[in-house]
Amino acid sequence: MKAFVYGGPGKKALEDRPRPEIENPGDAIVKIVKTTICGTDLHILKGDVATCEPGRILGHEGVGVIETVGAGVTTFKAGDRVLISCISSCGKCEYCRRGMYSHCTTGGWILGNVIDGTQAEYVRIPHAETSLYPIPEGADEEAMVMLSDILPTGFECGVLNGKVSPGSTVAIVGSGPIGLAALLTAQLYSPADIIMIDLDDNRLEVARRFGATRTINSTDGKAAETVMTLTRGRGVDTAIEAVGVPATFQLCEQLVGPGGVIANIGVHGKPVELHLETLWSRNIAITTRLVDAVTTPMLLKTVQSGKIDPTRLVTHHFTLDQILDAYDTFGRATETKALKVIINA
Amino acid sequence: MKAFVYGGPGKKALEDRPRPEIENPGDAIVKIVKTTICGTDLHILKGDVATCEPGRILGHEGVGVIETVGAGVTTFKAGDRVLISCISSCGKCEYCRRGMYSHCTTGGWILGNVIDGTQAEYVRIPHAETSLYPIPEGADEEAMVMLSDILPTGFECGVLNGKVSPGSTVAIVGSGPIGLAALLTAQLYSPADIIMIDLDDNRLEVARRFGATRTINSTDGKAAETVMTLTRGRGVDTAIEAVGVPATFQLCEQLVGPGGVIANIGVHGKPVELHLETLWSRNIAITTRLVDAVTTPMLLKTVQSGKIDPTRLVTHHFTLDQILDAYDTFGRATETKALKVIINA
Amino acid sequence: MKAFVYGGPGKKALEDRPRPEIENPGDAIVKIVKTTICGTDLHILKGDVATCEPGRILGHEGVGVIETVGAGVTTFKAGDRVLISCISSCGKCEYCRRGMYSHCTTGGWILGNVIDGTQAEYVRIPHAETSLYPIPEGADEEAMVMLSDILPTGFECGVLNGKVSPGSTVAIVGSGPIGLAALLTAQLYSPADIIMIDLDDNRLEVARRFGATRTINSTDGKAAETVMTLTRGRGVDTAIEAVGVPATFQLCEQLVGPGGVIANIGVHGKPVELHLETLWSRNIAITTRLVDAVTTPMLLKTVQSGKIDPTRLVTHHFTLDQILDAYDTFGRATETKALKVIINA
Amino acid sequence: MKAFVYGGPGKKALEDRPRPEIENPGDAIVKIVKTTICGTDLHILKGDVATCEPGRILGHEGVGVIETVGAGVTTFKAGDRVLISCISSCGKCEYCRRGMYSHCTTGGWILGNVIDGTQAEYVRIPHAETSLYPIPEGADEEAMVMLSDILPTGFECGVLNGKVSPGSTVAIVGSGPIGLAALLTAQLYSPADIIMIDLDDNRLEVARRFGATRTINSTDGKAAETVMTLTRGRGVDTAIEAVGVPATFQLCEQLVGPGGVIANIGVHGKPVELHLETLWSRNIAITTRLVDAVTTPMLLKTVQSGKIDPTRLVTHHFTLDQILDAYDTFGRATETKALKVIINA
Repeated sequence: MKAFVYGGPGKKALEDRPRPEIENPGDAIVKIVKTTICGTDLHILKGDVATCEPGRILGHEGVGVIETVGAGVTTFKAGDRVLISCISSCGKCEYCRRGMYSHCTTGGWILGNVIDGTQAEYVRIPHAETSLYPIPEGADEEAMVMLSDILPTGFECGVLNGKVSPGSTVAIVGSGPIGLAALLTAQLYSPADIIMIDLDDNRLEVARRFGATRTINSTDGKAAETVMTLTRGRGVDTAIEAVGVPATFQLCEQLVGPGGVIANIGVHGKPVELHLETLWSRNIAITTRLVDAVTTPMLLKTVQSGKIDPTRLVTHHFTLDQILDAYDTFGRATETKALKVIINA
Repeated sequence: MKAFVYGGPGKKALEDRPRPEIENPGDAIVKIVKTTICGTDLHILKGDVATCEPGRILGHEGVGVIETVGAGVTTFKAGDRVLISCISSCGKCEYCRRGMYSHCTTGGWILGNVIDGTQAEYVRIPHAETSLYPIPEGADEEAMVMLSDILPTGFECGVLNGKVSPGSTVAIVGSGPIGLAALLTAQLYSPADIIMIDLDDNRLEVARRFGATRTINSTDGKAAETVMTLTRGRGVDTAIEAVGVPATFQLCEQLVGPGGVIANIGVHGKPVELHLETLWSRNIAITTRLVDAVTTPMLLKTVQSGKIDPTRLVTHHFTLDQILDAYDTFGRATETKALKVIINA
Repeated sequence: MKAFVYGGPGKKALEDRPRPEIENPGDAIVKIVKTTICGTDLHILKGDVATCEPGRILGHEGVGVIETVGAGVTTFKAGDRVLISCISSCGKCEYCRRGMYSHCTTGGWILGNVIDGTQAEYVRIPHAETSLYPIPEGADEEAMVMLSDILPTGFECGVLNGKVSPGSTVAIVGSGPIGLAALLTAQLYSPADIIMIDLDDNRLEVARRFGATRTINSTDGKAAETVMTLTRGRGVDTAIEAVGVPATFQLCEQLVGPGGVIANIGVHGKPVELHLETLWSRNIAITTRLVDAVTTPMLLKTVQSGKIDPTRLVTHHFTLDQILDAYDTFGRATETKALKVIINA
Repeated sequence: MKAFVYGGPGKKALEDRPRPEIENPGDAIVKIVKTTICGTDLHILKGDVATCEPGRILGHEGVGVIETVGAGVTTFKAGDRVLISCISSCGKCEYCRRGMYSHCTTGGWILGNVIDGTQAEYVRIPHAETSLYPIPEGADEEAMVMLSDILPTGFECGVLNGKVSPGSTVAIVGSGPIGLAALLTAQLYSPADIIMIDLDDNRLEVARRFGATRTINSTDGKAAETVMTLTRGRGVDTAIEAVGVPATFQLCEQLVGPGGVIANIGVHGKPVELHLETLWSRNIAITTRLVDAVTTPMLLKTVQSGKIDPTRLVTHHFTLDQILDAYDTFGRATETKALKVIINA
């Protein structure tokens, strides 16, 4: 089968690989219908993700059709259309029982990381019964692909952790795909204001179309000041960090008001300076989270009922044969205006 | 009247001052019966608290008897015995209505800071109806003094923010008065283990008597390692920072397990390094809080019903005339083994 | 001044009364600009509300302008435009501090009940600082009148108590003004389905316009069956009772699914049969609540930001001189299709 | 093997039955070491539990040793000592993922009800990996038997649902085994007062030894009055119903104060009258719950750390051969003073 393979820092190729097979009774083999590329895949290609070794088929998002299931799988059968969660969850360990699927002792984020992933014609899914979701009749498959990772990530790490609530004031720092996913899902809780902050006017324009009530281009270094003016000196209730560098995290430290939350989504590569000398008395919380994808069923209901339309994130389409082009387009997002790219397998 | 006055960095004196008078309809004048010294008072004397100017009468804890009340005060009258909250709360502003008394727009921590405090024969209490509590018949007044600040601080900033719960594992870094207050109040939630960490063996011995299930002297720099061994590599559910320096906060970063909380109580003077490069995916929360003293009535019930005995924190007694000695004893706590000192006015 | 007075069961009149005066330091006298009639006022007129004695000026909703304030009032002054909460709250008692303003020991629902109310040219508001809200510049005054009672009631007793959440399924039994207020405010949490149940097709048509995803006319006695079919046998997550008679409460008992909530808003006059022989094992909650109006500031933000438009509830307008007509129109709601009637004072 | 079999209303016998065998890949066969009798077993014997048909081996509690496991079971192996949960949970269905194991679509309370149970030498446990718990080295096996059902039932249905909290006031109506389990576990949250109400002085004496701060013999019909006096007219924060008849539920309706909770544990056979004509405005919640046994791991930690000692509930010991005697003793609890009886298999 065709598969997109990480070959070490800076190396990638579409290769021919043997089809995966059932290894454990809980496995399912899924024929991929649609997949996509995540910002994390770009990190892997740069060599920044130590757990992912050369030779790995990338990808942790997608929808497909079940080809075969292991002996222990009773709730799925060949032919079922399924949504693949980016997080594999055994459903049995202490973390899974607490809803922290990301820390599943035999799962978590393993697809396209420590085992082969979804950017291929077929993929093996461990713990299939608790890591796949049936796709409802008539559902939009591209919307479903957005439920594999990006929507639950924006929602769980940003919106839920950030305690977004009716009438509250939210700032989202970073208007890339993940910040926009937070923007879309934040509106499920009807905050009064959502202020989107980025360096790129195009992305801010997208944010306005997606429901931001204010946008701030922070190129001039005055974003904190502007937010303080907008909030009459109080700061925001929720500051969502959706970039992953020290400067954006520290901007969040400046934006958050007393009693507020900084909800970190960004994947950070180095420490940040935490200004406890001012924050110790501000009654704030800072949260971190690797997505658990525990809200996927709930988000699916909001998509099916028309409360959010995640296909608005899809900007480009490719076939699996064109996946190198897809990576190129996604990698040059500022120029191409790419958000999420769909790859039809 | 006699009053203990801050005279600028390094300067302190017991002076003669005029008695305070009612200034606003919501005020009460309270004759102090017992007060105490807080670690924060030592910070003020060093000149570390910018809001507190020379000439200020210090002290934000105590019990007393109401002498007179302003025209707007209907729920207290002369002769009532009262507990003085370290936090003044108007009960009307948005923060007070959210239970964030510490951020009251006309109150908060003002006593012995921006207005004269309790280390005197009399004190003026603004917003008296929402900043004083009646002392129940037969209550131990020294226990009540512990409810002004130290017990709610340990409980709100450490235990509640840290989500201590039955069967959970807690580490408290710092076994001084505030860490011990967290230790006492943590037991209201029956955690399975409370690990106390300090550099001073005497304080750790006190912690064992107060209910710590383990103590670790961190002088050898191996506290994190030891905790990981004790928790079989998982880390703790709650790490309470009760010191206020970068090293202890970073120890908490190392101790906290996935899904856990770092609850900061410490008053920090400089930034700390937050290791988001590892913590971003650990699903943790970090909380800060200036005590709101919103749990004072609830803690009073637990004291009255014998669930906790805060008088265990009291190690020394002085009269107001001896307050310079009291400061000396409290300031040399390592030698004197002082925890809280009671000053009888 | 002109005032609408309850004269005993079945008796009502527009009378001439002396203007109210400041009685306590915390009072304010408010000149009424707009008021409205509540279903509870009809109950009083029938003689069903024992606490309300003949001679009482009715009304507990409205907006107005402050005429004078008592000596203890510092946050409002003559000329301020204010929203009057139906619940008077002292801000000091234990219930107020817990956010249960409805049970304020010297307040609660007293306006137009145990003290004179708002259906008059002037009203005295006790505990003014914690029972009035400033009206933002440019706010729609008729929207503000809806924030006195009906919107917080639908939201607090129905939506918050019912734990309405994104993707959930809600049934609201009763499509009168209060059920519609619950319908409007439920959408702040983006449930997937809101099923509205009533006997009156006109009100169900209104419900559809207000956002109900399904409506059921329960005249045929098959509402429970229909809901079970719609939910594939599972029942709803939230059943909101917005009528107040045994039959509608028991319908809620039949609709609620395992793990769900029955949130009672209705004012009941007699006991209901609770089928614990089936419900004991269903893991449900039943909640009751007299509105606390503690969410008024938050709802005001959602109105100001355009998330909800409560003026959709306003169907008729009258002057204070026409208040008997207003009562007649409101009392014959089935015929007149009245929801809320505005009375301009 | 020997097994205790329900033979229809009023009929019971110790019979010889074939050993159970693995039926599904997720099954385990457990050799019973210790089991016990539940009040529900008495209900079954009377013919009150429609789902349990004649011929059924009873029992849903116990500890044992794994004999064999199905092909899909990877986390347990022959020889492991295990605690058997009274609730079988697949870990995969929507209810299991929400922590509502009691409503598992292929599990729930099935043991000794719709499939054969634990009052036998061997039992087949479906969904073994998510329905059994490893017994820690050195744990007291009789304490572990109390974790199968009675402790989680008292804790989840009574204490957690009832929101027992530090300093609060709790009333428990019914001082039988389940009420006493609620009493033991309520103390994990340090309420100020626990008032135990029963008709039997012996059981109330036990309650005092177990930590009740007050006991009331309600034979004189004045329990509500007495509680109101004790709480100075306010009622209790939490009223736990641990009997299951209308009179005790209605007592709870009288005891609960504004803002409080009635947490129902009792298994009810008929409807109760709910006095909404007074309760509609009291801001209360009523909860029901079939135990989910989702807190078993947490309770196990509190037992292992010595916070609660559930062996205090064990009053009698029998062998499996003597199980008819055990039922007799347990069935005449008033005379025998039996709480929980241990049966050694």
